[in-house]
Amino acid sequence: MEQLKSLNDRIVNRVNISLQEFEFNADAFVEKAMNHDKMLKFYAFYGITSQHPIYFHFSNSNISGSYFLGKCSVGRSAIYKSDIRGDELKRKGNNSLSSNKLPLVQDEIIIIRHSLLYKTLVHNNSHNPGTPEEFLIINTISTHYANIHGSTLEGCFLGPFATVDLMNLHSCIIGEFSYVQAGELFQTIIDPGTIWIRNPSFSFKYKFEKRVLDEFIGVNESYQPRGIIYNFVKEKEKDYESLFDVVNIIPVEAPPSSAVSRYAVVKGKTSIGENVLISQHAFLENAEMGKGSNAQENTYIINSRLAGFNITAHGGKIIDAEIGLETFVGFNCFLNGKPTARLVIGDNCIVMPHTIIDSTEPVEIPDNRLVWGYIGSQNDLDSHSISLDKLSDSRDAITVGKMTFTGKGSVFIGTFKKRINHILHANGAFFKDDKDRGHAQDDQVISFNTIQPYRTGVNKGIYPSIRIEP
Amino acid sequence: MEQLKSLNDRIVNRVNISLQEFEFNADAFVEKAMNHDKMLKFYAFYGITSQHPIYFHFSNSNISGSYFLGKCSVGRSAIYKSDIRGDELKRKGNNSLSSNKLPLVQDEIIIIRHSLLYKTLVHNNSHNPGTPEEFLIINTISTHYANIHGSTLEGCFLGPFATVDLMNLHSCIIGEFSYVQAGELFQTIIDPGTIWIRNPSFSFKYKFEKRVLDEFIGVNESYQPRGIIYNFVKEKEKDYESLFDVVNIIPVEAPPSSAVSRYAVVKGKTSIGENVLISQHAFLENAEMGKGSNAQENTYIINSRLAGFNITAHGGKIIDAEIGLETFVGFNCFLNGKPTARLVIGDNCIVMPHTIIDSTEPVEIPDNRLVWGYIGSQNDLDSHSISLDKLSDSRDAITVGKMTFTGKGSVFIGTFKKRINHILHANGAFFKDDKDRGHAQDDQVISFNTIQPYRTGVNKGIYPSIRIEP
Repeated sequence: MEQLKSLNDRIVNRVNISLQEFEFNADAFVEKAMNHDKMLKFYAFYGITSQHPIYFHFSNSNISGSYFLGKCSVGRSAIYKSDIRGDELKRKGNNSLSSNKLPLVQDEIIIIRHSLLYKTLVHNNSHNPGTPEEFLIINTISTHYANIHGSTLEGCFLGPFATVDLMNLHSCIIGEFSYVQAGELFQTIIDPGTIWIRNPSFSFKYKFEKRVLDEFIGVNESYQPRGIIYNFVKEKEKDYESLFDVVNIIPVEAPPSSAVSRYAVVKGKTSIGENVLISQHAFLENAEMGKGSNAQENTYIINSRLAGFNITAHGGKIIDAEIGLETFVGFNCFLNGKPTARLVIGDNCIVMPHTIIDSTEPVEIPDNRLVWGYIGSQNDLDSHSISLDKLSDSRDAITVGKMTFTGKGSVFIGTFKKRINHILHANGAFFKDDKDRGHAQDDQVISFNTIQPYRTGVNKGIYPSIRIEP
Repeated sequence: MEQLKSLNDRIVNRVNISLQEFEFNADAFVEKAMNHDKMLKFYAFYGITSQHPIYFHFSNSNISGSYFLGKCSVGRSAIYKSDIRGDELKRKGNNSLSSNKLPLVQDEIIIIRHSLLYKTLVHNNSHNPGTPEEFLIINTISTHYANIHGSTLEGCFLGPFATVDLMNLHSCIIGEFSYVQAGELFQTIIDPGTIWIRNPSFSFKYKFEKRVLDEFIGVNESYQPRGIIYNFVKEKEKDYESLFDVVNIIPVEAPPSSAVSRYAVVKGKTSIGENVLISQHAFLENAEMGKGSNAQENTYIINSRLAGFNITAHGGKIIDAEIGLETFVGFNCFLNGKPTARLVIGDNCIVMPHTIIDSTEPVEIPDNRLVWGYIGSQNDLDSHSISLDKLSDSRDAITVGKMTFTGKGSVFIGTFKKRINHILHANGAFFKDDKDRGHAQDDQVISFNTIQPYRTGVNKGIYPSIRIEP
């Protein structure tokens, strides 16, 4: 157990030093998160396919519950129930980023050091032109259901349900339920509930009211979430247990062009269309997944219908809802329709990341709209949405309710649509005649290896060093 | 699949070359054994404890169902459902063998290359003074339920239910159901059903009649066993499936000084005494395991009572029987009592490896007897047993039935008793007041890692390279 204790101390120390300017202290969170009983009880797994390069190296770490694909090296870190998915790591010889056309000299690899990732998703498609071969997470703590998406981090703290997207962060604190996509940040604190997209051509900003954050996220002084969204997720945890208890599982019925992870919960009357991707830790109950739709890691789709070509980004929750064709639902959205007051969203809408819709009366959102923030009733739509056409026409600045947008609306929408198209493409939504393969096709046949820590002795809770190559 | 095919061809080729003097052809066996569907379906596992040095290296191999402890390197080999247990590998600095007092310069490691081990047990405690740091199995095929016990092999073929014990073999063919403990052998064929122990001081020899082998082993031209013993084992296979299907299992009730593998089948009214070791792949049903007893890999103890300090060596089968105090049951014995005609064996007996007792009338064996061969009735005892006292008195040669013994009986019995004592000691049968720890105490808390092969592509059926270190 000594090794686990010293791992604990090292992580606290390194994060505190990185954030000393802010007098930040990670101790209370790490103490609570590194629950030694759970770290001994769970096992970790990693995926083997013929479609992804393989290189795993785990050392001096506890990596319970994690899931790995592609190349990954974890050292002196604790990873608990995370979904680290390296299936979009860039390959040797590829051009790295659009602004930097030099080909990669080797396959990109995820490198995690001196960090604690707690129920955190890491997905790659990194956007750090400085280190295109290395996706680095160093001296960092990421808390409950935060998303590290294509973002490299050094000396950072991410609060519960925070998302950092396509960024590079150095010595930053990201408040709970904040979504940030702002290029590169140094020594910055982002307030809780901030939705911020920044780009040379535009900026989108919205901030949740404290009372909404208190109700839905409810983070206490040791950064433990206790609000409605956490309770919703917590309640479903037991449904995953049986998936982890068995080695092989009867596959869910799905067309040959679709992939349903054996680590996804699929319940009730659920139907899977063609070219559909259901990722590990997704939760489907009475869900109708139209052609080319996806349910990414930590998504919940309950009593709902997705018309087709829908993205449900990591952590998105859709309950008692109808989602129109090509409509996008962003990270960590909580779209909580009611059986007696269903939520209807039209075609071709963009539901911004971290949107909360929770109304006791029916809410209906027309086609072609951008939606954000907290919507507690149909009336709230006026101050929390805009038609895509109207936003496209904006060339300077526009304010709707508490949202401010500056820059060219057409560029913002164009960029968003391009990204949606990229995600659908990467997920295999357009697969036809053996062309345009994506995750739905490539991630179908995965072998899983499982690993467990030492159960006794000084290394109790630590995993032996493991190196896997093709 | 190309890689699996070429692995297949390479093993056949290397074994055939090693045995070309005998015009041996391994093709038919390898073709049948390397069942690609099964090799894809099963997974392998290896154990992590704080008591054993850890170093595993698997490369270019298929290793379904295996179980490893200690240090082991497997390359370009196929291992199917084997139990490779390195928990008696010698440590760096230890004296190696009694005849060679030089300390080991590094921990001993099991090295398996270009070999096919099919449902084969490998247990170490090697006796090759030439390579004390390396336990080598090279260019070798070992078939159904053969035991490679403390024996290094180079270019050999072991038939079904054969056992090689504390030996070094080079270019040898060991016939089915033969037990050989004969130091070092070169280019030798051992006929099926030969029981042979050779030592500078004595020799024990017995040979089963062909009709008995045909009935109980029944090997066909592609070396597949089809007789009574194989059918008995085959019938029990389904009981193991549920053990392999689940990740965690409710532990069997046992005293804190005893170990019951989570990969053992325990059914019916079974009781486990103190200092008892139940190894993986053991099968207990209505078994009473007295203090200090053990049931090693691939043993079956059904409707039987073991009084205490009993060894049931690898592959031993005890059905409807009473086994007296300190009685030893050797490798692959088939002691098949009947519910209406129970088999009773007294205290302090030695049941030689590969003994078959199968009678429709009750058989009773008195205390202090050595038993061997095929016993079909109480009368057969006269020609298949001798009292230990009488054998001790023999100083030159003695013949009983078809058994011939030459040399000093007292040395033979002394050596055997010493070995029994060593095995009990190593298994922790004498554990008291935290002294004399053995496998029963050290193998209790094991973490298991599981690994699976590539499921698609050219590497289909092959496992990625894996290297595990502390």
